[in-house]
Amino acid sequence: MINLYTWATPNGRKISIMLEELGVDYTVSPVDLGQLAQFSASYTAISPNNKIPAIVDSGSEGAPITIFESGAILTYLADKSGQFLAAHGQARYNALAWLHWQTSSLGPMLGQLGFFAVRSEEKSALAISRFSEEADRLLNVLENQLQAHAYVAGDEYSIADMACYPWVLAATAYLKQVLKDSLAAKPAIQRWLQQVGARPAVQRGMAIPKL
Amino acid sequence: MINLYTWATPNGRKISIMLEELGVDYTVSPVDLGQLAQFSASYTAISPNNKIPAIVDSGSEGAPITIFESGAILTYLADKSGQFLAAHGQARYNALAWLHWQTSSLGPMLGQLGFFAVRSEEKSALAISRFSEEADRLLNVLENQLQAHAYVAGDEYSIADMACYPWVLAATAYLKQVLKDSLAAKPAIQRWLQQVGARPAVQRGMAIPKL
Repeated sequence: MINLYTWATPNGRKISIMLEELGVDYTVSPVDLGQLAQFSASYTAISPNNKIPAIVDSGSEGAPITIFESGAILTYLADKSGQFLAAHGQARYNALAWLHWQTSSLGPMLGQLGFFAVRSEEKSALAISRFSEEADRLLNVLENQLQAHAYVAGDEYSIADMACYPWVLAATAYLKQVLKDSLAAKPAIQRWLQQVGARPAVQRGMAIPKL
Repeated sequence: MINLYTWATPNGRKISIMLEELGVDYTVSPVDLGQLAQFSASYTAISPNNKIPAIVDSGSEGAPITIFESGAILTYLADKSGQFLAAHGQARYNALAWLHWQTSSLGPMLGQLGFFAVRSEEKSALAISRFSEEADRLLNVLENQLQAHAYVAGDEYSIADMACYPWVLAATAYLKQVLKDSLAAKPAIQRWLQQVGARPAVQRGMAIPKL
């Protein structure tokens, strides 16, 4: 059985989407970020960077496996199941490249834009300008890719889509003003959002954790 | 034969270190970021996010493989060679988790700190405060890990060390003032920097590209 440590944020939803896509049994331990539960000693032992998500998989052969970082967890679940990530070759590394692109660029830059443009009371014009330009550049990279391919990493739905979807969906809502409707003007991203968002497993995954 | 597209930055050095550790033949194509060479049409076809590093491996069976994103390239080279990343189990996912931690947190946050505190003429006290606090938090996470283990992902030298080393080394130099000597006060990081930096392959890799 897999236990998922998560909260109601895009990084957590990547993993609940994947678990729903796989149709495996799993339990959920909410980690209340508002209560700083991620800094407890017991959770630090699971996730030393004090972030969600993390998993403990007690169902593997041998000792339970503990994994933090959403990108590492998606890779583990894909390789364990043989689904949503090719076993080798160009298709595998396209998916891992776009997965790393999401975790290293799209996620952090949208996250910083959310802080400086929305959450922070104090405003820095320099920081808002820097992160809105970088977010727009990254969304153009994604638009170009989705103009040429059905999915983020190519012709097949993969863990790269599951990594990008909750972040891009969140950007359509809370960053709408900041991004100056640049998302609405990207037809391939809109097509992809509808396509991925129509998957029942994605809809179920986006509703986790149930609070 | 592997061709490495790179420039004199920490993300490029991750891959030249790995190639030197593996002792494989490779060629280097410098991508002059100062000349905006990363935006050329030919390079965009290799690296759609217009960043270095990228590789083209024409020595694999079948068609050449093209990979962008340093984390995906390190994973490819490790799995192809069977070195510096366990094939399965907890050790594999510890290394992938810390690799993702570097690419998604340590790298982006040190990079933003470098921009706001060093490179930008205009200064934002809000942004400098945010990123110096986050950089210090992340370096404390690394210090705790290296207090408990010889290397970033545990007892074995892995691709997680190769990902972290060029970034932490750069921070000891150009972020020294900003980080208020917090790096000098972290004995396990200092021990690890010396240990990793003493490896001949790391020294050779840090000297790539030769310009």
